[in-house]
Amino acid sequence: MSKVAVIMGSTSDLPVMQDALDILKEFGIAVDVDIVSAHRTPEKLFDFGKNAHKNGYNVIIAGAGGAAHLPGMVASLSPLPVIGVPIKSSNSIDGWDSVLSILQMPGGVPVATVALNGAKNAGILAAQIIGSSDSQVLAKMEAYKESLKEKVIKGAEEVRKKS
Amino acid sequence: MSKVAVIMGSTSDLPVMQDALDILKEFGIAVDVDIVSAHRTPEKLFDFGKNAHKNGYNVIIAGAGGAAHLPGMVASLSPLPVIGVPIKSSNSIDGWDSVLSILQMPGGVPVATVALNGAKNAGILAAQIIGSSDSQVLAKMEAYKESLKEKVIKGAEEVRKKS
Amino acid sequence: MSKVAVIMGSTSDLPVMQDALDILKEFGIAVDVDIVSAHRTPEKLFDFGKNAHKNGYNVIIAGAGGAAHLPGMVASLSPLPVIGVPIKSSNSIDGWDSVLSILQMPGGVPVATVALNGAKNAGILAAQIIGSSDSQVLAKMEAYKESLKEKVIKGAEEVRKKS
Amino acid sequence: MSKVAVIMGSTSDLPVMQDALDILKEFGIAVDVDIVSAHRTPEKLFDFGKNAHKNGYNVIIAGAGGAAHLPGMVASLSPLPVIGVPIKSSNSIDGWDSVLSILQMPGGVPVATVALNGAKNAGILAAQIIGSSDSQVLAKMEAYKESLKEKVIKGAEEVRKKS
Amino acid sequence: MSKVAVIMGSTSDLPVMQDALDILKEFGIAVDVDIVSAHRTPEKLFDFGKNAHKNGYNVIIAGAGGAAHLPGMVASLSPLPVIGVPIKSSNSIDGWDSVLSILQMPGGVPVATVALNGAKNAGILAAQIIGSSDSQVLAKMEAYKESLKEKVIKGAEEVRKKS
Amino acid sequence: MSKVAVIMGSTSDLPVMQDALDILKEFGIAVDVDIVSAHRTPEKLFDFGKNAHKNGYNVIIAGAGGAAHLPGMVASLSPLPVIGVPIKSSNSIDGWDSVLSILQMPGGVPVATVALNGAKNAGILAAQIIGSSDSQVLAKMEAYKESLKEKVIKGAEEVRKKS
Amino acid sequence: MSKVAVIMGSTSDLPVMQDALDILKEFGIAVDVDIVSAHRTPEKLFDFGKNAHKNGYNVIIAGAGGAAHLPGMVASLSPLPVIGVPIKSSNSIDGWDSVLSILQMPGGVPVATVALNGAKNAGILAAQIIGSSDSQVLAKMEAYKESLKEKVIKGAEEVRKKS
Amino acid sequence: MSKVAVIMGSTSDLPVMQDALDILKEFGIAVDVDIVSAHRTPEKLFDFGKNAHKNGYNVIIAGAGGAAHLPGMVASLSPLPVIGVPIKSSNSIDGWDSVLSILQMPGGVPVATVALNGAKNAGILAAQIIGSSDSQVLAKMEAYKESLKEKVIKGAEEVRKKS
Repeated sequence: MSKVAVIMGSTSDLPVMQDALDILKEFGIAVDVDIVSAHRTPEKLFDFGKNAHKNGYNVIIAGAGGAAHLPGMVASLSPLPVIGVPIKSSNSIDGWDSVLSILQMPGGVPVATVALNGAKNAGILAAQIIGSSDSQVLAKMEAYKESLKEKVIKGAEEVRKKS
Repeated sequence: MSKVAVIMGSTSDLPVMQDALDILKEFGIAVDVDIVSAHRTPEKLFDFGKNAHKNGYNVIIAGAGGAAHLPGMVASLSPLPVIGVPIKSSNSIDGWDSVLSILQMPGGVPVATVALNGAKNAGILAAQIIGSSDSQVLAKMEAYKESLKEKVIKGAEEVRKKS
Repeated sequence: MSKVAVIMGSTSDLPVMQDALDILKEFGIAVDVDIVSAHRTPEKLFDFGKNAHKNGYNVIIAGAGGAAHLPGMVASLSPLPVIGVPIKSSNSIDGWDSVLSILQMPGGVPVATVALNGAKNAGILAAQIIGSSDSQVLAKMEAYKESLKEKVIKGAEEVRKKS
Repeated sequence: MSKVAVIMGSTSDLPVMQDALDILKEFGIAVDVDIVSAHRTPEKLFDFGKNAHKNGYNVIIAGAGGAAHLPGMVASLSPLPVIGVPIKSSNSIDGWDSVLSILQMPGGVPVATVALNGAKNAGILAAQIIGSSDSQVLAKMEAYKESLKEKVIKGAEEVRKKS
Repeated sequence: MSKVAVIMGSTSDLPVMQDALDILKEFGIAVDVDIVSAHRTPEKLFDFGKNAHKNGYNVIIAGAGGAAHLPGMVASLSPLPVIGVPIKSSNSIDGWDSVLSILQMPGGVPVATVALNGAKNAGILAAQIIGSSDSQVLAKMEAYKESLKEKVIKGAEEVRKKS
Repeated sequence: MSKVAVIMGSTSDLPVMQDALDILKEFGIAVDVDIVSAHRTPEKLFDFGKNAHKNGYNVIIAGAGGAAHLPGMVASLSPLPVIGVPIKSSNSIDGWDSVLSILQMPGGVPVATVALNGAKNAGILAAQIIGSSDSQVLAKMEAYKESLKEKVIKGAEEVRKKS
Repeated sequence: MSKVAVIMGSTSDLPVMQDALDILKEFGIAVDVDIVSAHRTPEKLFDFGKNAHKNGYNVIIAGAGGAAHLPGMVASLSPLPVIGVPIKSSNSIDGWDSVLSILQMPGGVPVATVALNGAKNAGILAAQIIGSSDSQVLAKMEAYKESLKEKVIKGAEEVRKKS
Repeated sequence: MSKVAVIMGSTSDLPVMQDALDILKEFGIAVDVDIVSAHRTPEKLFDFGKNAHKNGYNVIIAGAGGAAHLPGMVASLSPLPVIGVPIKSSNSIDGWDSVLSILQMPGGVPVATVALNGAKNAGILAAQIIGSSDSQVLAKMEAYKESLKEKVIKGAEEVRKKS
C-alpha cells in the first residue's frame, strides 16, 4: 500500500501543512509527519532523503519558508517524486523567497512546486501520483472532482439570490 | 506499461519542450506529443483532458507561456497528475506571467510546477512519478542520480587545473 | 436591449464583483450573475462560453483570483468582448498572479483587463461598450462623467477649509 | 458604420501599433491613425479626447510606453471605450511601468488593458466591441476564431512528425 | 515672495499630503492647496497647469495614487518644476503602480519624484528649490539640517541606556 | 548667474550622464562635471557636499547605479536641491536597485528622482528649478515645450502617410 | 579581545537590532551600540567609519531601512568587515528598497548582507567572523549549532503527537 | 596562516567566481577551489561542510545560481563564516531566484550575501574577515582602499576633459 511522508522545516509550518495531512486522510492514504530542518538538522535531512524510498514512502511532501532548501535538498537525495510547498513565513519578502527557492531547481533535480501555502493541493497531487498507478485512488480522485462541482453549483444559486 | 503525454500551447514551444521528450526516451518511457491550445482549440483541450486517463496516459506534461492556462485547465479536467512547464515566450514579462499563471492554482486543482523553461525536469519528474510504483524505473532514477555526480566530479578536476 | 453577464470563479469573489452589478444597475443595464469556475466546473464554463452570445449577452465580465483562468477561457470560447477583473484573494502573491494571468493573453484572444479589484470599472467599461452603439447609454455616460467632477469640486472646497 | 481611432504617444510606437491597424483592416473595419502625446501635445490630447465620439469614432485604441498616461487621459475625456496597449520602450523597467500606468486606473475611469505590446489583441477587442452590436462583425469574429484552430491543428501535425 | 501649490487627486490623499503643507509652513513658505483630479476634472487640470506660473507659483507638488497621472500631466502643461508624491492607496499593487506612473516620465517632461508617501520630503524639496535662489530660505535649510542631527544624538543616548 | 554641478559615481556613467550636460548647454546654463564616488572617494564626497552651495552651485545632479548612495549622501550634506539619476549598470537587477536606492530616502532628506537613465530629464528639471526664480530661463522652458509639440506634429503626419 | 559595533540609522530600528545585541551577549562577545544616521549625521558617520578599527572593533553590524545607505557608507570608510541588516520600515516598498540598497554594492566595497530584519543572524555572523581566528568562539559556535538541532527534535515529537 | 575555500555549484559558474580567486591572490591569501553541487553531489557537500574548519579553512565562499542551496547548506554544516555569491545563470528569473535563495536564510544560520555576480566583493569580504584579526591583511586592505581612490581621481580628470 502507498504511503506519503509530509515533512516541514519548523513546527511553525504545521498550521499550513496540516491541510496536506487532512486531505490525504480524506483519500484514505497512509501518511507520516515529521520535522526535518535542512539548516538545523542536516544529518536528519540526509538520513531521511537517502532512505525514504526504502522506508516505504512513495511520495514526499516538503514545506518550508524563506530561503527554503528542504524540498530541493530532499529531491537531491531521493529518487522519489518530491512535492514542495512554499510557505509565507514572517519576515518573508511577500513569499517570493520561498516560491523561487523551491521552484527554480537546476536541471536534473525537479521539485513539483504548488502554490504559496498550497498544502492542500500538495496532498491532492500526492494522491494523483498514487492514483496514476492505482485505479482505486484514481476513482476516488474522479469522485472528488465531482464533489468540487457540486459546491460551485450550490454557491451559484446563493449568489443569484443574494445579488 | 506507463505512458506520458507531452502537450504544449504552440509549435513555438517545441524547442523548450523537446527536453522533456528527450529525457523520457532516455528513461525508456513511452511518450506522445501534441499541440493543444487552451485559447485557440478549447474543444480539443476538453476532449484531451477528459479522456487522457482513458487513453492510457499516467502523467501529463503541459508547457505554455504568457497567461498560461493550458496546464491548469488540463488539471481541472483530468484526475491524472499534471506537470506544468512555464515557458519564457517573447513579450512575456520576464517569465513572471507564465510562472504565476501555472503555479498559483486554487485549492482542489494542483499543477506540479517546475522551473521556468524547465522541460527536462518535467520529464524527470514524470519518470519519478512512474518510478514511485515501478521498481525498474525507480532503479533507473537512482542510476541517473549517480551519473549526475560523475559529471560534477569531472568538472571539479578541470576547474582545479584551470584556475 | 443590451445585457451583461457577470460571472466569477467563487462565491468569495462576490463582495468585490458586487460593484460591477451595482454600477450596471445604476446605468439601467440588464445584468445576470453566475458562478462559473474554470477549474471546478469546466463543463459549465464551456457551455456558458459557447452560448453567451446566443443567450442574449453583449458583454461578459469575469472576475477571478490567483491563477485566474476564467476570463481567458471564456474569451477563447466566445466571440463577445470579455472584461477581466483580477481579484486579490487570500494566498495571492500580492495580486500579481491574478493580474498577469488575466492580462498577458496570447495573440488572437484578448481580455479587456481592469485594475486589481476594479469591478466597478469593469461595469463602467461594459456600459461604455454598449454606449458605443447606443446613444442613450452614451448620453448617460457623459452625465456620469459630469457627476464625477462635482464630487471632486466639493472635495476641493472641504480640503481648502480643513488644511 | 463603425470606426476605430488608433493613437500612440510617439512615432517609435508605430512598429508595435501597426498590428492593431492590420487586424482591423482584416476585419474590414474603418480605422484612423494619429500621434497624440499626453506629455508633449496636451492640447491635442484634450481636443481629441473631448471630440472623438462626435467625430464618428466608436472605440479608441491608445498605445504608450513608460509612465504611459495617454490611454488613461483619453479615458478621462471621452465617454467611449478606450483600449490601452502598454508598450515596452527602451529604458522601460521591463515593461512594468507602462503596464501599471495603464491598468491601475481609479474607480470611474476604466481603460481596457491588453498584454504588453499586445496591439493585435487591441484590434481584435475593438472588433469584438463593434461586433457586440453588429451581427456581421460578430459573424466574422466567429470565423476568425475558427481560423485560429486550423493553424493549431496544422502545427500539431508538424510537431508529431518532427519530434 | 515664493509660493508653492500643493495639489492631489482626491480628498483621501490629504492625510498623506498634509505633511507637505506642515513642513512648508514650518519654513515660512506660502502654500495653497487644492484637489485636481487628472481623471475626473481634466479641464481643471488643464487650467491649473497652464496658468500656475502666471498665478504666482514657483513650485508645484502633486500627489496621486494608483495609475497616478496628475504629476506627469501637470508637468506636461507647466514650465515650473513639479514634485511628484506617489501615494499608496487602497487597491494599489503595493505602491508600485503610483511609483512607476510618476517616476518613469519620457524625455522632455521630468517629474521630481520622492519616496512612496514622502510628502514631507516633497515639502522640503520645494523649500530647497526656493532656497537655491533665496539665501534666507537656504539659511533656514542649513538650520533644519542641524536640527535633524540633534534628534539623532538624543536618540543615540537613549539607545545606549536602554540596550 | 546660476550654475549646475553634474556628478557621477564612475566614468562608465558618462554615456548616460552626458545627456544632462548637453541639455543644460542647450539652455545656456553653466555646468561643471566631476566624478565623485560615495564608496571609493568618501572624503571627496564630503568635501563636495559640504561646500557645493559655497562654490556657487544652485542645483546638483548626481547619477549612480546599483546600490546608488551618491545622490542621497550628497543630499544629506548639502542644503541645495539634489536631482538623482538611477543608472542601469551591468549586474544591476534590471535597474530596480538604483531606482529604489535613490528614490526611497527617509524623511528630512529628499532626492528629486527622475526615470531610469533619465539624465536628460535631470538637466531639464535643473533648468526648471533655475527658471522658477529666473524669468529668462522660464521663458526658454516655455519655448522648449513648444518645440516638443512641433516634433510630435511632424511625426503624426509621417505616421498617417506610412500606415 | 574581540569587540563588535552595532549601529543603526534610527531609534525606531532598535526593536529589530536588539536581536543582534542579545545573541552576541549570549556568545560572550563584547558589543557597543550607537545610532549613526548616514543622512542626518554624516559627520558622525565619517568619524565612526574612519576610526572603528582604531577604536578596537573587529566587526561592524549596521542596520537601516528604506534607501539604506548606512552599511555601504561605513563599508566605504572602514577596512573592517561590515554586516548589513535590511530593515522593513514603515513606507518601505515591502522591504525591497532596503534589501537592494544594502546588497547591490559596487566592486571594491562589499557589505555582508543578511535577511530582511535578520539582526539575529547578523550577530551570529559576527561571532563566526571572530570564531574564524578564535578557537574558543569557534567551539561555542559548534555548540550553538548542536542546540539548534535539539529544538527541532523536540518540535518533531510534538508535531507527531498533535497531527 | 589563513586559507579560503571557494566552491561553486557548476563549472559554468567559474567565469563569475574567478574574480574571487584573483582578488584573493592579489591580497596574498591562500585559496583552494572546488565544485560542490548541493543537488548533484550532496554527499560531497556534507563532507566538505562538516570538515572545512578541520581542513584549515577560515572562510568559505560559495557561489550558485537559480534555486541556490549551496551557500545555505554549507552554512548549516560549518561553524565558519560563509559568503554567498548569487549567480545570474541562464533561465534564472533575472537573478531574483539566486539572490533570495541565498539571502533569506532562517534565524540561526546566516549567509553573508554579496551582490548578484559579486564574486570580487566576496573575495574582498573574505580578506576583510581575515584582516579583522590579522594586522598585516588589515594594512593591505587600507592600501587597497587608497588605490580605489586613485582610479576615481584619474577618471575624474578624463571626464572633465572629454565632456
